[in-house]
Amino acid sequence: MQRVLNIETIKYINKNVKVCGWVNSRRDHGGIVFLDLRDRSGILQIVVTPTAELAKDIKNEYVLEIEGKIQKRPIKMFNPELETGEIELKAENINILAKAETLPFDLKDLNVSLPVLLDYRPITLRNKKIQAIFKIEEEAINSFRKTMKDLGFAEFQAPTIVPVATEGGAEVFHIDYFNGDAYLAQSPQLYKQILVGVFERIFTITRAYRAEPSVTTRHLTEYISLDAEMGFINSWQDLMDFCETVIRNIFLDLGKSCQKELKLFSATLPKLGEKIPRLKMKEAQEIIFKRTQRDNRESPDLEPEDEKEIYEFAKEKYGSELIFISHYPTKKRPFYTFPDPKDPEYTLSFDLLCRGLEIVTGGQRINDYEKLVKNIKKRKMKIKDFKFYLQAFKYGMPPEGGFCLGAERIVKQILDLENVREASLFPRDMARIDQRLSVSKKRNPRRKTSSLSGNKLKK
Amino acid sequence: MQRVLNIETIKYINKNVKVCGWVNSRRDHGGIVFLDLRDRSGILQIVVTPTAELAKDIKNEYVLEIEGKIQKRPIKMFNPELETGEIELKAENINILAKAETLPFDLKDLNVSLPVLLDYRPITLRNKKIQAIFKIEEEAINSFRKTMKDLGFAEFQAPTIVPVATEGGAEVFHIDYFNGDAYLAQSPQLYKQILVGVFERIFTITRAYRAEPSVTTRHLTEYISLDAEMGFINSWQDLMDFCETVIRNIFLDLGKSCQKELKLFSATLPKLGEKIPRLKMKEAQEIIFKRTQRDNRESPDLEPEDEKEIYEFAKEKYGSELIFISHYPTKKRPFYTFPDPKDPEYTLSFDLLCRGLEIVTGGQRINDYEKLVKNIKKRKMKIKDFKFYLQAFKYGMPPEGGFCLGAERIVKQILDLENVREASLFPRDMARIDQRLSVSKKRNPRRKTSSLSGNKLKK
Repeated sequence: MQRVLNIETIKYINKNVKVCGWVNSRRDHGGIVFLDLRDRSGILQIVVTPTAELAKDIKNEYVLEIEGKIQKRPIKMFNPELETGEIELKAENINILAKAETLPFDLKDLNVSLPVLLDYRPITLRNKKIQAIFKIEEEAINSFRKTMKDLGFAEFQAPTIVPVATEGGAEVFHIDYFNGDAYLAQSPQLYKQILVGVFERIFTITRAYRAEPSVTTRHLTEYISLDAEMGFINSWQDLMDFCETVIRNIFLDLGKSCQKELKLFSATLPKLGEKIPRLKMKEAQEIIFKRTQRDNRESPDLEPEDEKEIYEFAKEKYGSELIFISHYPTKKRPFYTFPDPKDPEYTLSFDLLCRGLEIVTGGQRINDYEKLVKNIKKRKMKIKDFKFYLQAFKYGMPPEGGFCLGAERIVKQILDLENVREASLFPRDMARIDQRLSVSKKRNPRRKTSSLSGNKLKK
Repeated sequence: MQRVLNIETIKYINKNVKVCGWVNSRRDHGGIVFLDLRDRSGILQIVVTPTAELAKDIKNEYVLEIEGKIQKRPIKMFNPELETGEIELKAENINILAKAETLPFDLKDLNVSLPVLLDYRPITLRNKKIQAIFKIEEEAINSFRKTMKDLGFAEFQAPTIVPVATEGGAEVFHIDYFNGDAYLAQSPQLYKQILVGVFERIFTITRAYRAEPSVTTRHLTEYISLDAEMGFINSWQDLMDFCETVIRNIFLDLGKSCQKELKLFSATLPKLGEKIPRLKMKEAQEIIFKRTQRDNRESPDLEPEDEKEIYEFAKEKYGSELIFISHYPTKKRPFYTFPDPKDPEYTLSFDLLCRGLEIVTGGQRINDYEKLVKNIKKRKMKIKDFKFYLQAFKYGMPPEGGFCLGAERIVKQILDLENVREASLFPRDMARIDQRLSVSKKRNPRRKTSSLSGNKLKK
């Protein structure tokens, strides 16, 4: 007999079916056993009666294949919470496909600390509410891809092994690359710029890496970067327009496809207002000073507390939970950032804050070969490290720019999660790659596993 | 005036438009200049007349913004090769957006060696035929995604920093991870298996890494892996059925969307026949021995020459350019591979060969916790390294399996490219990350750039 998904059984009343799934819960009521069977489509109630013999040894998370008849439940037993809440399957045969040990916690009403949640990620992911986070993440990424394609962007797969630290700075992972060195890409930046010279409009859904030496609620060492870049812009403002379209569509699409998931978190999608407001960093600092008397007006960036304050301002004044902040200082942005011709100490770059957290960063790039060369030299980087990248500009590059979205951060902000790790299937940080890492001063004991690596022998 | 794409100008005959793009070529004919302007949609002929003054300094790859009137060409000047071949734009104003240096080769009729092609990747990618390779790759990946979604698979973003060498063996890159060690994922294998326990059917489009210490025409150190995994299979044969659907759809979709691109390579899509034939490795070796008298019957794998021979056999006997080879020896496959119950020396695993090259590998996995533990121990690996992964099996995993496709290899085989590097935008190998690497015994001179990395200081 062909397997039927739980959700499809509503079409089989008084018919025999075969279903498969995990035991979500078991309830014994005087000789009758009720099992909630979970599969990828949802939950189906299984009733084992008149004797519970068939379900004798069955425990939570057992994997079962069950044959039996779909029947209407008595009206008073209807469960409006379930899509299959008016029916149940009367088991005639139960085949145990795999057993499960007793869980260390209740998977249905999961109430554990974040470290424990992550220690047991392979099973805590089976919790309905946690699954919902990743349904939303998948749909947000789908929406990004769809908008990009509709706007004529080509998709590419970005390389992640790179020969130099793209963004400069210290937060880069080193790879032993045969008898030389390589690094994990801090972003696909240089490649998407190169490809503007080829495809004009380009995007990628890729991994980016930051050797973030501190543990915060906002940072991961490996994260999902949704990156776009486009040529022939008329103004850097075009980039914010495109970015706004992307974000607006993500919220629209999630509103259509993820109501059930949002409801589990009592989450409402962020409001954008008529148009997302746009402020220069300096303007934002003045507003914050006026509102709070907290004087960060000389700071080269917005502090996390400032980002929260300017969110409150945008919500009050513009009815928008998002706000663009532009004109960050030239010296705080990477070498390729386009300086404002009116005030070259500041750049035509922007961040997009959502409910007080940066979820997008972007800006216009320098497309003039000579200016790029000058900037690389000025920052004491080596021209030969950028020779490959610079070709794209030496041989004709239109005015261009782009932006990137952090997928986990968007989801965190939508669902109001406390920690960005909750929005990553398998979050990596200084203290964890799946299992907790020893962060003592001596080399990690797992070091020994490197005997598996031929490369280590070359050291 | 709003910019119009080249391809759209056919709707603007006798109207004024603005177009943007790169100079693909320049031809001077007695005072008249013809420019072929290339944008992301195609080529448009620009005519500069009565005086060529406007085009005075313009060279190949200059980036231009041109205003002028779209006019019908004289009939004898029609160019059937171009979608805009019956029209041209009479330039009234030309604005140089960016200049370009003189190219080191003719970009239109590119005739350079592979190393030079890759040294100049940022500009050789601008060649029409080379762009076609990546249009095909993008469409093949789209097709994979679409088939997976249609079959009820959820998409996930796989982590690439991993704590242990997933597949064992020496071909793994080591990362300096703060004060410990990490590795680049050889595949998303363990994660997709974990997620079968969550979503049943799961796929990812990700990067996989192999520290391949030799330079061949088939290997990259970083490649695009199209990975799928599914639970509740009835038999390992289900996996080949799903895989065949995926491949058939890729060829169907490319047939629909990439005829122009395939034609540039005079490529025909591989024939599958009614059904892709399936042979055990031992059977294939017997057939090869009979056909060639070459005796590799004791070999634990098919040699490259064997793969080519069995392709010839499949084409002759079944009219199929693809063939599944199954039952590779247990000791040659990873620890999680399901042994054939009838002959445990061999596994329920398979490769799919396309025109004599492996493009897919897959198989059923062991879903029993105790058996996995035993296998890990038997292979002298450490249980604690797999503790996280093993949770998925300890708490109930259905019978499952999966497969992965190498995107670059599929494209290589479709277009009959000599080298898989041609099918990678930015191919990485032992001797190249964008620029050529020094492969001398002493550390690479670029080593010095590691001063950018804070991590190095901790060594």
